[in-house]
Formats: sequence, C-alpha cells, structure tokens
Amino acid sequence: MNASAIQDVSDYLPLAEARLPLPIWRYLQDGDDGDNERALVAVRLLPRPLSNVRGGHTRLTLWNQSFDHPVMLAPVAYQRLFHADGEVASAMAAAAQGGQYLISSLASQPVATIVQAGGNPDGRGPWFQLYWQNDRPRTQRLLRSAVDAGCSAIVFTVDAPVKMATLALPDGVDAVNLEPPVPRPIAPGGSEVFDGFMAHAPDWDDLAWLRQQTKLPLLIKGILHPDDAERTLDAGCDGIVVSNHGGRVMRGTPTSLDALSHIVRRLDGRAPVLFDSGIRRGRDVFVALACGAKAVLIGRPYLWGLAAKGAMGVAHVIRLIRDELEMTMALTGCRQLSDIDRSRLAGTE
Amino acid sequence: MNASAIQDVSDYLPLAEARLPLPIWRYLQDGDDGDNERALVAVRLLPRPLSNVRGGHTRLTLWNQSFDHPVMLAPVAYQRLFHADGEVASAMAAAAQGGQYLISSLASQPVATIVQAGGNPDGRGPWFQLYWQNDRPRTQRLLRSAVDAGCSAIVFTVDAPVKMATLALPDGVDAVNLEPPVPRPIAPGGSEVFDGFMAHAPDWDDLAWLRQQTKLPLLIKGILHPDDAERTLDAGCDGIVVSNHGGRVMRGTPTSLDALSHIVRRLDGRAPVLFDSGIRRGRDVFVALACGAKAVLIGRPYLWGLAAKGAMGVAHVIRLIRDELEMTMALTGCRQLSDIDRSRLAGTE
Amino acid sequence: MNASAIQDVSDYLPLAEARLPLPIWRYLQDGDDGDNERALVAVRLLPRPLSNVRGGHTRLTLWNQSFDHPVMLAPVAYQRLFHADGEVASAMAAAAQGGQYLISSLASQPVATIVQAGGNPDGRGPWFQLYWQNDRPRTQRLLRSAVDAGCSAIVFTVDAPVKMATLALPDGVDAVNLEPPVPRPIAPGGSEVFDGFMAHAPDWDDLAWLRQQTKLPLLIKGILHPDDAERTLDAGCDGIVVSNHGGRVMRGTPTSLDALSHIVRRLDGRAPVLFDSGIRRGRDVFVALACGAKAVLIGRPYLWGLAAKGAMGVAHVIRLIRDELEMTMALTGCRQLSDIDRSRLAGTE
Amino acid sequence: MNASAIQDVSDYLPLAEARLPLPIWRYLQDGDDGDNERALVAVRLLPRPLSNVRGGHTRLTLWNQSFDHPVMLAPVAYQRLFHADGEVASAMAAAAQGGQYLISSLASQPVATIVQAGGNPDGRGPWFQLYWQNDRPRTQRLLRSAVDAGCSAIVFTVDAPVKMATLALPDGVDAVNLEPPVPRPIAPGGSEVFDGFMAHAPDWDDLAWLRQQTKLPLLIKGILHPDDAERTLDAGCDGIVVSNHGGRVMRGTPTSLDALSHIVRRLDGRAPVLFDSGIRRGRDVFVALACGAKAVLIGRPYLWGLAAKGAMGVAHVIRLIRDELEMTMALTGCRQLSDIDRSRLAGTE
Repeated sequence: MNASAIQDVSDYLPLAEARLPLPIWRYLQDGDDGDNERALVAVRLLPRPLSNVRGGHTRLTLWNQSFDHPVMLAPVAYQRLFHADGEVASAMAAAAQGGQYLISSLASQPVATIVQAGGNPDGRGPWFQLYWQNDRPRTQRLLRSAVDAGCSAIVFTVDAPVKMATLALPDGVDAVNLEPPVPRPIAPGGSEVFDGFMAHAPDWDDLAWLRQQTKLPLLIKGILHPDDAERTLDAGCDGIVVSNHGGRVMRGTPTSLDALSHIVRRLDGRAPVLFDSGIRRGRDVFVALACGAKAVLIGRPYLWGLAAKGAMGVAHVIRLIRDELEMTMALTGCRQLSDIDRSRLAGTE
Repeated sequence: MNASAIQDVSDYLPLAEARLPLPIWRYLQDGDDGDNERALVAVRLLPRPLSNVRGGHTRLTLWNQSFDHPVMLAPVAYQRLFHADGEVASAMAAAAQGGQYLISSLASQPVATIVQAGGNPDGRGPWFQLYWQNDRPRTQRLLRSAVDAGCSAIVFTVDAPVKMATLALPDGVDAVNLEPPVPRPIAPGGSEVFDGFMAHAPDWDDLAWLRQQTKLPLLIKGILHPDDAERTLDAGCDGIVVSNHGGRVMRGTPTSLDALSHIVRRLDGRAPVLFDSGIRRGRDVFVALACGAKAVLIGRPYLWGLAAKGAMGVAHVIRLIRDELEMTMALTGCRQLSDIDRSRLAGTE
Repeated sequence: MNASAIQDVSDYLPLAEARLPLPIWRYLQDGDDGDNERALVAVRLLPRPLSNVRGGHTRLTLWNQSFDHPVMLAPVAYQRLFHADGEVASAMAAAAQGGQYLISSLASQPVATIVQAGGNPDGRGPWFQLYWQNDRPRTQRLLRSAVDAGCSAIVFTVDAPVKMATLALPDGVDAVNLEPPVPRPIAPGGSEVFDGFMAHAPDWDDLAWLRQQTKLPLLIKGILHPDDAERTLDAGCDGIVVSNHGGRVMRGTPTSLDALSHIVRRLDGRAPVLFDSGIRRGRDVFVALACGAKAVLIGRPYLWGLAAKGAMGVAHVIRLIRDELEMTMALTGCRQLSDIDRSRLAGTE
Repeated sequence: MNASAIQDVSDYLPLAEARLPLPIWRYLQDGDDGDNERALVAVRLLPRPLSNVRGGHTRLTLWNQSFDHPVMLAPVAYQRLFHADGEVASAMAAAAQGGQYLISSLASQPVATIVQAGGNPDGRGPWFQLYWQNDRPRTQRLLRSAVDAGCSAIVFTVDAPVKMATLALPDGVDAVNLEPPVPRPIAPGGSEVFDGFMAHAPDWDDLAWLRQQTKLPLLIKGILHPDDAERTLDAGCDGIVVSNHGGRVMRGTPTSLDALSHIVRRLDGRAPVLFDSGIRRGRDVFVALACGAKAVLIGRPYLWGLAAKGAMGVAHVIRLIRDELEMTMALTGCRQLSDIDRSRLAGTE
C-alpha cells in the first residue's frame, strides 16, 4: 500500500503492525478501547445540506494559546519503541500541522530535545504530562525540568499508579527524564496494594501542593467522576482531560464519552474539558466536541503513523483526521468549532 | 439459476456479481446500507385474516400524475457501467411496468434518448434528478435541457457535493449531459473543504432561485432534518425524498426510516414525502408507506436486475417487489394504498 | 445415538435430518421460527424451593374434554413425507400419551383412519383443522366428513391462503381428504393477488356461516390482532389458537408470545386461548401457560420424533416435554396448571 | 505455562482442562454460567483517583467469625474427581489464605478429615453445606456428624433436589459421608416428578424443624425470590446465599446478580446476604459487594486451580482474586469493605 492509497487512519494499522516486533505491537494495542470507539460510532449526526459554510475554519484558543485545529497528540510513553526518531518525530509533526504535542513523563528522549523539535512558530512549547514521582521533592524536580525546558502547560495524570510496564524495554529505550526508582519495602503482613503502590500515589493534598508549584495552566487527566471534576477546579486547576486511559487502568469503567457528558453537564462551562480515548476519525472528533469537549487527544492512531513512516506518518494522520473533521463540519452546516453542539446530534430534532 | 428459479429480488444479487468486473461491483455495493435495511426489517406487521380485499389495487396519483404502483427507480449514475443498454433499459422497464424512472444528472446516455425510451403511454416523461452545477448559469442550462427533453418533474439532490467518483470510469462511460468541469483554485492557506468543494455547493438562496426556474413539480432529495424539510416547503418546493444516499455521503447518519418518521410527523400532510434507501422487498415498501411515505425509490435491486438481464431484469425486479407489496396488503387487509397506515404496524394494537 | 442417550427433544433433530431426503428436510425446517423460540427462552422463571408440591399433576379440561396434560400436536400437512406410518403414527402417540392430535386438512391419510388410530380411551376423537375450500359448499362437505368421522372439535385456520406448497410431493403422498382444486381464472389486467388467491379466501361473513354449520367447539387459528380475537368470539367461536404459522405465512410478524400476551389481556378470560409456534421444551410450555395460554401445540419437535422413530418417537417427544413441564412446575412450586401465572415470571417479584 | 506466567484466574482454565479426563472436565464446566458472568462484567465502576487509601484492608466479621477477606470456597461435590488430594487440599488452601471453606454434603473425603485440614488458626472449622437426606432422621444424623466434627456454620441448600449426578463416578470417588440411598417406589400412575423426587424434598415445615436442631449459624442457599428470603429469616435463619447454582438447576432463571439486588433491597439489612455464581476476578467480588453482598463464594475457578496444582493452585486462585479486589478498592478509593456501596457504580454519579 503506498501513501496515496491511504484514505483513512485505519489504513496505517496494518503498516504499523508489519513494522513492529510482536511484543511491541501487543503492548501498543493492549487494553480494551473497543467500548470507547463503539460509543463514538453509535452517535448519529444529522446532515444539514444547503447551509452556507464558506470561510469556515477549525481554529480555537485555550488558556490564551491558539491552535489551528483541536486534534492534539496524547502523551504516550517510550516512543522510541515505535520509531528510532521517537518523541522528536511526533512533536515535529504536531508543530508542523499547527496542533499540540503532549510529552509523557515516560518519554524516551530528553524533554529539552523534544521541546526544541516541537515548538510552535509563535514559540509556544509542547505540554508536559506529569506522573507523581513517589514524593513531593522528586515530583517537584521533574516539574521544574519540564517548565525550564519550555513546556507551556502541565497535564497531571492521576489514574495509573498501579499497573505499569507489561513490556521488557529493549536496550536504549528508557524513561530518560526520570530519577532512578525508589525502593518501596512493605512491612510484614502489609498489603502490596494498600501499603505498596498506593502508599506512594498522590492524594488531594498533593494536588493542592502541586497547584502552588507552577503558574502554567494545570490540567488533570484521569478523572471520570463529576464530583472529582468539580473538586479539581475547586483546587485551582484549569481544565480536565476526560480519559479512561484507553482501557489500560481498570476493567469495566464507563466509556470516556459517557463520562464526558456527565462531567460537562456538571461543570457547566466553568473550565475547558478535553477528551481522550477511542478517537479514530474526524467524525469522532466532531462527536466529542458536540458532547462538550473543547479539543481531543489521539493516541494509537498517531503511533501507527509513527511506526509506519516516522514524522511524515504522524503528520499525515493528523491531516487526515482534520480533513475529516472539516468535511463533517461542512456537511452538518458548521462554520466554526463553536457551532458544534448537541443540536447537531440525531435525536434532538 | 434460471429466471423461473428467481423468487426474490436478492436472487439477482449473485447473478449481477457474476456479470460485473470486480471494481464496478464494489462501486455498486459501496456504502453502508445495512442500517437502512435492518430498520425496515425490524418493523413488525400484523396480519388481518378474514378481511375482504377483493378488487384491491396499488394505484396512486402524485402532482396529477398517476402511477400503477408506488415503486420508482432511483436516479443512479453511469448505468452503462452495469449493462450496455444503460439508462435506456432501466427507463423502458419502468415504463412497461407502469412505474416511474428518475434520470440522474450523471446519466451515461443523453437525456432525450432516455426520455424517448421511458415515456409512459399517456406521454408523461421520466423525472430528472438535478445536481447543482457549480453556479446558476450552468445549473440553469442543465435544467432547461431536461425540461426541453420532456422530463415531468425535477428532483434536486442537495446532499452529495463532497465525495463523488471513487471509480475510474471505463472508456465510453461518461456523464454525457454535463458541461466540462470548472477548475476550482483554492487560495493559499485556504481549506480544501470550506473554500473548495463547499464554496460551489448550493445554499438556501440558490434553492429559492431554482424554484423560479421551472413550473414542474420540484422535489428535494437529501433532507433528513425536519427543520430543513419545513423550510424546503416554505421555499415553494412540492415534495421531499427522504434518503441518506444509501450511506454514501456521511457515516453514521440516522436511518432513512427514522428520518422519514420525524419528517412526516412535522410536515403533517403539507406535501408528499417519498422514501429512498434500503428497500429490498415488497414488505419494505409497505413499511415505508405505513410510516407515511407516498411512494418509494429502489436503487441497488434494480441495478442487480439490469446487470443480470438488462431491461428484462429490471422489469422483473419491479414486478417481484410489486407482487410482494400486493401480498402484504392482502394479508394485512389493505385494499388500497391509503389503507396502509401506522395501525398496520405491531405495537399499535 | 441410542434412545437412552436422548435427553432433550433437540436430540431428535439430527436423527430426523439423517433420515429425511434433503428437500423434505428443508420443507420441514423452512420458515423463520427463531424469533418465536428466542422470545420464549428470554422469559426468566423464579424457582420457589421449599414449596410442597406432593400430589401435583398436569390435568386440564377444555370444552368438557379432559386431558392428562396440555401438550397437543399441531396440524401438519402430509405427514407421510416424514414417515411411512404418517398421521396414524402421530395420532396413536398422542392418544397413548393422553394428549390431543389435530388432523390437518392436508393430511396424507383418510380422516376416518386417523380418527380410529387416535381416539382417546373415553372415545373422544382428534380435532380437525379446517382450511377454507374455495367456496361454502366445498368447505361444508369437508367439514361434514370430519365431523362424521368422529372429530371432536374444529380448528379453522385463517392465515395461510397465499403461499402454500413449496415442495413437489412425491408419488403416493397427497391431500387425500380434499376434492380436486378448482381452476381460478383471472380477468385480463386483474391482480393475481387481489383477484386470484384472495378472491377465494374466507371473510368474516364466511366465518359467521361456518359457525352455523357445526355444534362442535370451533377454534380459530391464525389470529394475531386483539381486535380480531374479540370479533372471533363475538361471531360465536369457542377459542383462539395464537400462532404465526412458524414464520411461514408473512415475514416480520410479532412473535407468537407477544401476540398471546396482547390477546389474553384483551379477552380477559372470555374464552380459552391456545398457543402455537416455537415450543421446544417443557419450560417453554410453562412460559406460554404463565402468559395466559390454556394449552400449547407443538409442531416440528414431534415431526423430528416421527421421522426418526415413527409413533415411538412422537410418544417420546411428548413424554420428554411433559416431564420437563412437571419439573419446571415442581421447581417453581406449582402443583397444578392453574397455579402457573405471571407471578411465576421474574420481573414481577 | 509456568506459575509465574499466570496473571489471571482464567489462566488456570486451560491447565485444568489439560489435566482432567474429558467427562470430568465436561461435568465441571456443565451448566450455563455465562449469564451470571456477563451480568457482573456489565456493571461499570468509577475510578476515584487522588483518594488516600493508605492502611486499607479487606477484613470482615460475620456471626462473630472474622475473616481476612470475603472470598470463600463454594461447596462442590466429589473433589477427588479433580485432584487426588480432594477436599483436604481445598480446605487447607482456604485456611492458609485466611478465607473460609464450605464442605459439600457430597464430599468425597470424611468431614472430620477435612475439618482437621481446614481449621483456621483460631480453631474455627469450615462450614458445612447440607442437602436434605430424604427424611428428618437421616438429615439429623448428617447434621450431627458435621457439627460433631467441628463445622462452624450450616449452609442448607434447598434448590437442587431434581437433577443430580450426570457423571458415572469413578471407583474410589464417592459421597463417603452419606448413608446409602433410600429406594423411592412410585405408585402406578404416579408422576416421577411430583410423587418421586419432590415427595422427598424439604418444605418450609422441614426448615422450621431444622432450625431447632442446631445453634450454629444457619444459612439458606438457593433462594432467589425476595418473598422466600424474607420467610427464611422469619423462620429464624441467619443469612442467605444467593445463587442460581451456576445454571445447573433450572434453565432461564434471573442472574444471581439480579436476584441479589432484589433480595438485598427487600431484606434491608436484616441479615447478611452472600453471593455465589459467576465470580471470575476481584472486580466481580467488588461488584457483588457494591450490590449488597457481604461475602462471595467462588466455585469453578478454585477447582481449575485444584485440578492444575492441588492445594497450591487453590491458594493461588484465592490470592489472585483477593489482590484484584484490593486493587479495585484502591482505584475506587475504598479503604475497607464497608466503603463499597452502590455509589461506586457508574450510573449513580
């Protein structure tokens, strides 16, 4: 299949599968994202022909940062697993396409290098995804290094302390931005869960502390309950990324789309909500926006592009999804993102 | 399989598949019509034995045109792809069976030739399906040629400006009734969608203009939203063809049957509504009529007949569906089309 | 598989399939009964352990006729297709098991012979299923012959005038009780449906006439609409057999179970309602009775038994279903059929 | 697959299948438990990150007996079918893991031997599952022997008198704790069901009598109807085990989870309710507890472990499920079992 034959993001899937060693492919595809995808597909849209959409566009502004379109690249660990150019390739592609890249705490290349590759023309750097680092001082040092490197927002992920690496990392692929792990002895009779993992997970007090450490926009990723979303804003955070981590954290959570709707309804415009999990094409972006998201994160699709063709593949994936979003907007009579609301969904007519 | 072994329209499917080159077969079957079919099949009918239906019939009148039955042939492009006799064969079959043929803007034979083949005994010509031709003068010229050739109604399709030919047309198959395409340059930085395709799509003002150009009945095809249906009538149009284009325009629209019910309820008898998409047998016609349609368009089924046996195949397909419609009417105690209403559907008893 | 290995009626299915020529097997299995079966299976029952059911039984009385159990054999045409002993074998088995046999108008053996084989110890004969015979005199002659032969009730089937034999009958298998068919010429331009088949179908006037022709209990089979059920009783009939003809008459009717519930609710005890279509095991009988039926007809299952082992097989099938019915009654704490009501179904607790 | 590769209880399934003769494997897997499993999986949980769960645990107390966790081993017959060490192995594993073992009336090893193996450090013995033994004197003798051996509670199973052994037991595997069966002649014309099996099944009077025979906690297993649950407590019983016997007793009952919810709502805290059927992993335990159960019984999963690796396998299965329960608690912000309630389920936010 040559590039011109690619009409849809899913065409990159077999290309990526052919390139990647089996264990890495499985690691990438692991987790049940099917429910998230099906929830998006199940939403029906109503075409509105005869609308005049000349001059339409997909631009948006969030926290005084402007973007050509709302398709961002989710923070994914160890991208050198998928291509030798790793995070640098992905960040370059995002910048070239006028979107936004999110650097993972578990990036396999130095944050500063990635920032340099992925800065926007106006000088705004990528966003940084922060995992809690066992305690406050370690966490603070990681945060500082990201801020100093030029990241322009912090996305604090709170949902995945338990089950992490299911893959033995190959030589030369590592979380280069992190300090060595701290040993965590468990007292005899203690629980590996309650007294092990969870004893070093962040809590609401830690979040309040974190809020004090930076003036950058602070988003929280991994919140699914509306009560938690509200409490997050009360703690001074600037936004929420609704995600069920592509099904990797806990079996049988609600779909991200379901959680999005609940949270948007509860927050009632107090802060922007972003959407992650299950986006495969432009119409999915449209659906998420119609349900109240301001922007979306894509994950696996851009890694298929990265594995298949490096930066070019990532850029192409973003372009395809953006084109499909524009087409969906045009067919439904939406001239700008703010025209996309629930009235565009079937069942409301 | 010989003709006498054909008991059902679906028996033509394998015959057509065997006759057509693979790319043409795929082009014909492309698009997801499954939802439309399933929606029709899911509706349950209540038999009413012991009814007296002697003297029953399927005749109807629309805009002072009378028809033996409500099964019309949808406007499908390039029918010489499917059989050397092309549109002429289909139009002859429709006329011979007392139905109605709709000529596509993208017909592969001259409109005048088709009209001659497909005129009814009473001299009424086929209907003409009109696509917007980039601008008003070009559109007007196409409309004029159809009217002059003797077409007896105009069906203006408003839902498919974006994605068109996915097939490289073989030599000798062409849209012979159209002028050469106009180049559409896009300004640097412009969007292919918003500033390209959609810049030359018709809008509501164009519809108002079009209404002034002809006294023939003017129907609009491609409307799914009740608001749009109402606005169409306000603009002076005479009827609506509810269709989601067999799934070819946009993924994940509501089914045509769902849209039909919403639109019929809203219009409340102001104008006739026709139904297109997913009809495979006579009981489907009955269901559409029970949900408020006055007539139906069939698409793929008659092209299977055309591909398999030319005009004879098309005529047979129409006959089969009409016979099944009569049988369904007889079993449900309906003596004429106006007896077919929602009370015939299970769930209303 | 030997007889002792048979634990379930469905075990007879492969035995029957192995015995029958393919066209006959297909004819037997033709029609979509799956919806009927699934509707029965979907109903959940609540076990009621610790109930005392000693002395329980399955006896019932209908129109002053008493039966050991409520499992009757549906009137099925041409049973010599399935076994050389034909209807005689089935009728003997029903009598031996204390149940009831229904002779089809299309039986392949003389009514008198079947009656002789299938009379109960108390001398009560089988019931006779009557199809309308083109006109009143012919119908009257068939009815008379059945009454004279000793049939003890008439089941008038009103739902299948259209589509009949889809099988070329082998030599020696014939509807021996019927007069030769009458030619039915259709005037030029007439409809095969409205002016052909249906012109010789019975209507409500014919039913009123039929009611005058016999003092035997008169049941109507093929009614699915509650309005029709009520009108049937108003016409002096004694009961209803709810059936969608195993899916053979019309595609996409409601399930028999659904129709049963509607009709039972409407009739509110005015007359007994029997249930046909989809019964495969004793729990299905229980479900039908809980939904208001007084007795059930089984069809395909006993023909599997007939095809596999003649009268022995039919008797075994009846026994298996009756045993399962008793077991279901015992587990749900029902001591007699009148204890079986909607409160036994889950969702009512 | 070596032990370290086992990450999930279901990994034991193929190991067990490989070890067991086919008829025994079928006997173990027989019955439709799929509905029970699907009902558990369908319940969605809401993660609550940022909760502080340090010091969390899974301890509970029931009838003054304390347990490290709520995962008990269901009473399963003839465990020497699955491993030479039989019930002794299972009981040892339960004790070692701080859980609870339930001895079946149909155990293949002497109750006293099993009690000795499975006593907890604090000297509390396993619980004893009691089947009615035809009449009161025989039942009383079996009860006495269990009490004398040191069992610490009685679980009276009331739902399975009808269909029992579908397997020919191999030599040396037998119900060693039972007296020889009593012949049960049926009077001529009597029903095998009503006058056979059921004539020797217990009724409510027998339950009242049984309550008088012991001061140990008395639980009833096999109740699905809320009326019966209430009547059980009125009869002086101490608790309910909701179970549909893994689908082995009656086809098409409600799922255990559905019955649990109805019963918990009705009892409103009057007595502890335990849950059996379909538990496959820790999140299922969490779901059952959130729906009101105080503890759960696992069946097939521990027998897979027993078949694959004897006592070690059973212990590992318990450990895996307990670890998953702790993880689910941690991710949902539950520090102890009493924190697990309906507010943890999606749809309540």
